Amino acid sequence: MTWQATILTLFPEMFPGPLGLSLAGKALREGRWAIEAMDIRGFATDRHRTVDDTPFGGGAGMVMRPDVLDAACEAATAANPGAPLVYLTPRGRLLDQALVRELSAGPGVVVLCGRYEGVDQRVIEARNMVEVSAGDFVLSGGEPAALLLLDACIRLLPGVMGGAASAAEESHGTDGLLEYPHYTRPAEWQGHRVPDVLLSGHHAEVARWRRAEAEAATRARRPDLWDQFTRRMAEQPNTAKAGRLDGHPAAA
Amino acid sequence: MTWQATILTLFPEMFPGPLGLSLAGKALREGRWAIEAMDIRGFATDRHRTVDDTPFGGGAGMVMRPDVLDAACEAATAANPGAPLVYLTPRGRLLDQALVRELSAGPGVVVLCGRYEGVDQRVIEARNMVEVSAGDFVLSGGEPAALLLLDACIRLLPGVMGGAASAAEESHGTDGLLEYPHYTRPAEWQGHRVPDVLLSGHHAEVARWRRAEAEAATRARRPDLWDQFTRRMAEQPNTAKAGRLDGHPAAA
Repeated sequence: MTWQATILTLFPEMFPGPLGLSLAGKALREGRWAIEAMDIRGFATDRHRTVDDTPFGGGAGMVMRPDVLDAACEAATAANPGAPLVYLTPRGRLLDQALVRELSAGPGVVVLCGRYEGVDQRVIEARNMVEVSAGDFVLSGGEPAALLLLDACIRLLPGVMGGAASAAEESHGTDGLLEYPHYTRPAEWQGHRVPDVLLSGHHAEVARWRRAEAEAATRARRPDLWDQFTRRMAEQPNTAKAGRLDGHPAAA
Repeated sequence: MTWQATILTLFPEMFPGPLGLSLAGKALREGRWAIEAMDIRGFATDRHRTVDDTPFGGGAGMVMRPDVLDAACEAATAANPGAPLVYLTPRGRLLDQALVRELSAGPGVVVLCGRYEGVDQRVIEARNMVEVSAGDFVLSGGEPAALLLLDACIRLLPGVMGGAASAAEESHGTDGLLEYPHYTRPAEWQGHRVPDVLLSGHHAEVARWRRAEAEAATRARRPDLWDQFTRRMAEQPNTAKAGRLDGHPAAA
């Protein structure tokens, strides 16, 4: 089964772009995933190929028309049946690894990239779109977020990264903490030595040190994650104490 | 002054990629910004051009060497003096519009795209890198996040979007709420009518309706933002009540 990405965009030439290179590009050539970028403008019905209009109620910017987008969604859904329709918008739920996992486990995804001020709300509801936000910042359009979303999904597809993806997966956020810091050779570099514990060969101490570093980084850098973590720990106090012995932080 | 982006990557051919098209591409051709992608592998010193090694203390994945990266950072900083060095990593502070604004107002940015498990912690500290995370998901490398970060910065550069960027800026998150829903023509589409208030011509009622919709969406979709919003409102209760009359939600 080939995982199918169908992109609705005003800039189809942006795809596959960076996803045609590196691991994603290799997987594309191997047929592990496929991509079709559809030009929304091709579904406009007037001779100027208009896709947007001014917002009812006033305000800056232009809004994408429901009739044009609905026709585009119809074509995308026919080309990629069974795939959820994701609309990338700052109004959406935040993209996270749980959603990435869910999408990569399915048949594929249809991604609508907005431009202008937004998309008419009626077509979002009529097409049952999953509204997803890449984060709390403003992009020129949904395209850079679509590339990011696809990259995250593709690396989880079977055969793309082998064991490497699942290993990184495991160390990332299974217990909602940031990763511990990494060190490699040389052991001494410009007068900076690697922390002694990492050279000790004592696995349990390494695991304890990494767990403490992960907790300290989370507390300092991501109070939001730290809040969630401490709340979960308060609910399940007995699983919180010991690091596992294989070098990964303990699952909470 | 040309805003300068310098990218440290193992895949320099990914840049400018999608940023060579659309508004960012036009601005690039106009000289409003410039980009140089430097191949980290070019700074390796052995004949295999090795950039990574196994992590001290054990664990999955490979870590980028401090000596190789330090030489790459030296070259990037020489080519782009005065620009902050951003390292894209899940361990970083979350990318938000405040950071985008800050970066786009400066001379440019050096962006380090990690691959493998991560980067040796000593070079992160020695080079005073700003660690930034695009969000709580795992990418194949920093490159898709770099494209996203640059897109967000470029649209704010003078002359790139004219008034459109600042208008969108204003409606996005000045008070930390999600946007209200948008509607455009046709007023009736497949039996779905635009909300009557938007056709009323009554600006104050439109503003009130939009404010209520923005609050409802934020409460339902982003409890994190809603929490922050209600806390700010509790601190400054008198500024919270009235929508402005120009169709944008009130600033808090």
